[in-house]
Order: sequence, then structure tokens, then C-alpha cells
Amino acid sequence: MRVHTESIVVRTTGKGTYEITDQVNACLARSGIAGGTLTVFVQHTSCSLIIMENADPTARRDLEKFFDRLVPENTPYFEHTAEGPDDMPSHIRAVLTRSSEVIPVTGSQMQLGTWQGLFLFEHRQAAHRRNIVVTVVGE
Amino acid sequence: MRVHTESIVVRTTGKGTYEITDQVNACLARSGIAGGTLTVFVQHTSCSLIIMENADPTARRDLEKFFDRLVPENTPYFEHTAEGPDDMPSHIRAVLTRSSEVIPVTGSQMQLGTWQGLFLFEHRQAAHRRNIVVTVVGE
Amino acid sequence: MRVHTESIVVRTTGKGTYEITDQVNACLARSGIAGGTLTVFVQHTSCSLIIMENADPTARRDLEKFFDRLVPENTPYFEHTAEGPDDMPSHIRAVLTRSSEVIPVTGSQMQLGTWQGLFLFEHRQAAHRRNIVVTVVGE
Repeated sequence: MRVHTESIVVRTTGKGTYEITDQVNACLARSGIAGGTLTVFVQHTSCSLIIMENADPTARRDLEKFFDRLVPENTPYFEHTAEGPDDMPSHIRAVLTRSSEVIPVTGSQMQLGTWQGLFLFEHRQAAHRRNIVVTVVGE
Repeated sequence: MRVHTESIVVRTTGKGTYEITDQVNACLARSGIAGGTLTVFVQHTSCSLIIMENADPTARRDLEKFFDRLVPENTPYFEHTAEGPDDMPSHIRAVLTRSSEVIPVTGSQMQLGTWQGLFLFEHRQAAHRRNIVVTVVGE
Repeated sequence: MRVHTESIVVRTTGKGTYEITDQVNACLARSGIAGGTLTVFVQHTSCSLIIMENADPTARRDLEKFFDRLVPENTPYFEHTAEGPDDMPSHIRAVLTRSSEVIPVTGSQMQLGTWQGLFLFEHRQAAHRRNIVVTVVGE
């Protein structure tokens, strides 16, 4: 049994979903671990992680539109708006999704289903440099 | 320290919550692992996992009604509707809940609270065969 | 590789977010584990866990207001109301957030980002004694 940890950086260019499956697969390959669990963790509170349909781009577009309506910018009662109208919605959208995803590993592969991709969900409008920690525990 | 992985199948017959606590407990028993963590992972993007009150069926009925209203079928702006009106809502409801649940194990038992049950949350109307991977890491 | 498990208790005094980062850090220190993953798990279905901005209290206030509006008390179709108007909303708010959070550990520290705090999100109005299980797996 071993632990392998590394960090990856994702440069975002505004709100939306950014697939990171390949980058995380590369971490797993470098770990040399064949079986166990892989944990992806994002070190921010204004972006998040999701596992989502990765074949048809309209699915992700609809998802992004849904979150724009569920947590609207310029909600009148928001007080935490120092960084702009996307400030507070970004924290709430992060809470409604995930800071971490845990994925099983067997045969040196993440056991994602056929249509599952792993995505960084960026909730801020400005470009950001996002830090993600990948931890593989196994043998 | 060891890793034990196995897959289970849940046959769903339409939208709703399906308790899988017993099936997951059986995986844990077969693992022979007494202490560590158990990860449950669903290999789909149109159903998901939740931990929920498992005593009173009205709690799950209210939950299902809430999700039906939060992400309505026939939302006018949805584009990803090739598989029907429950197509896009199912992906969003999955993103709002979980692809994985991680539960502590001590004394060879999952440490669920008194009222906690583990459920597959099916978001599609048609019957489906759902694959779930259970991974126990521990000693 | 080792497993360290311990339970902590959080006494809540009504709806709101309660930071538990320091208590969980103390568990990690007692574990003596330098690298791996730390899993926090709440053994209840009417409170939950979130990772949230921990610097500006208005961010948490806005979050709490948002959840009050997203899942309103006295929703006419709720049947599961035996314990009062906050009964069913508490289960739904828990499902929309997390029963567990998994955080990477390196150098004997949780790898939380600069603005990330770990919070118990209490959804019930009455005071409660909440049990949380912390499991560290690593070396």
C-alpha cells in the first residue's frame, strides 16, 4: 500500500466546465498504483468539481444555464459582493457541487463509466489559475 | 493494509430512491476489512447516490417531489433532450447530488448513523441496469 | 500505511454554519499520519458538511439565506413534517450538500486552500449534539 500525491493547475478563462479527465489520468499513470481510490480535491471556494456527461456539449451548456438561474447574479439580498456580482453566486454554486470527487481504481485505470468525464466547474467570470490536488491510495 | 473492490448491479424501474445499504454491507463483509473507508461510486451520469433518512417513506417521497420541481422536465431552454424530457434533468439532478459516497468503517461495520441509509437515486423514467463500484481500503 | 479513526462531537444551537477545521486538525495531529487522505463524515441526515469561504462572515450568512429560500419551510406539499416545519427542509438541504468531505494530507497538514474552511451545516432550529467521524488513511 502506498500514497501518491501531486498537484495540477488548470487555467480557466471564465465561467464554464473544463474537462480534466486526461490530466488526472496522467497523475494516476505516474503513481504506478494499480488498485485503490483516487481523490481529486480543488483548493478553492469559487470553483468546484463535477462528474458529468462528456459526449454532448449541449448537456454541459444546459447545466451551466441551470446554475446561472438557480443562483442568479445580482440577487438583491446578497451582502458578499465585494468582488462583483459573480462573487457570492460562485461560493453557493461550489457548495451545491463538490470540493472533492473520489473515483475507484482497478487495473491501473479510473473506473469512470462510459459517459462520465471529470470537470472543473469555474464559477468566476475572470481568468483564474486553479490548484487541484490528486491523491492516489492503493497498491 | 489492503484494497477490496467489487461491483454491484441495481435494476431500477423508474424514477425514485432505491436503498442499497444491505448490498453494500455484504461487500464490506466479503472484504474482511475491519477498519478504514468504504467508497461507493456510481458509473452513470443520469442517476446518483445519496445518504438519506431511511425510516419514514414520506421523507423520500418529499425529496423526490422537491427534485422534480427544482429541475423541471420540459424546461424551455434545455437543448439536450434527445432521449426525452427526463434526459437533461437527470444529469442536473445527478450533479446536485453525488457520484460517490465515502463512509468510515470500524469494527467491520459501516459507521452510518441510526437514521442513515445509502440510496441509489434514479433520475430516468425507463428501467435501467446501474453499475456501482464498492472499494474498501483498510486493514 | 495505517488507519486512524476518531469521533468528535459538535454542539449546535440552531440553524447555521459551525467551523470545525481546528477540531479536525487536532484529530489529524493525533493520528501521526503525514500523507494520505482525511475523511470527515457526519452521522445524521438533518445536518451536513460543506467546505466554504471562511474569512468573511457575510458569505456564510448569504449562503444560509439562499438555502432558506431554496428549500422553504412550510412548503405546501411536504408530508414529512412530524418534527416541525424545519424537518423535511433539513433532509433536503443535507442531500444538496454533503455527508462526507475528503481532504488530501501532505506534510502532516490538510491541504485546504487559503480561504477554505470546513463547516458543519446545521439545518435544525433546536440545539443538537452532532457526531462526526474522522478517518485518516495514510503513512
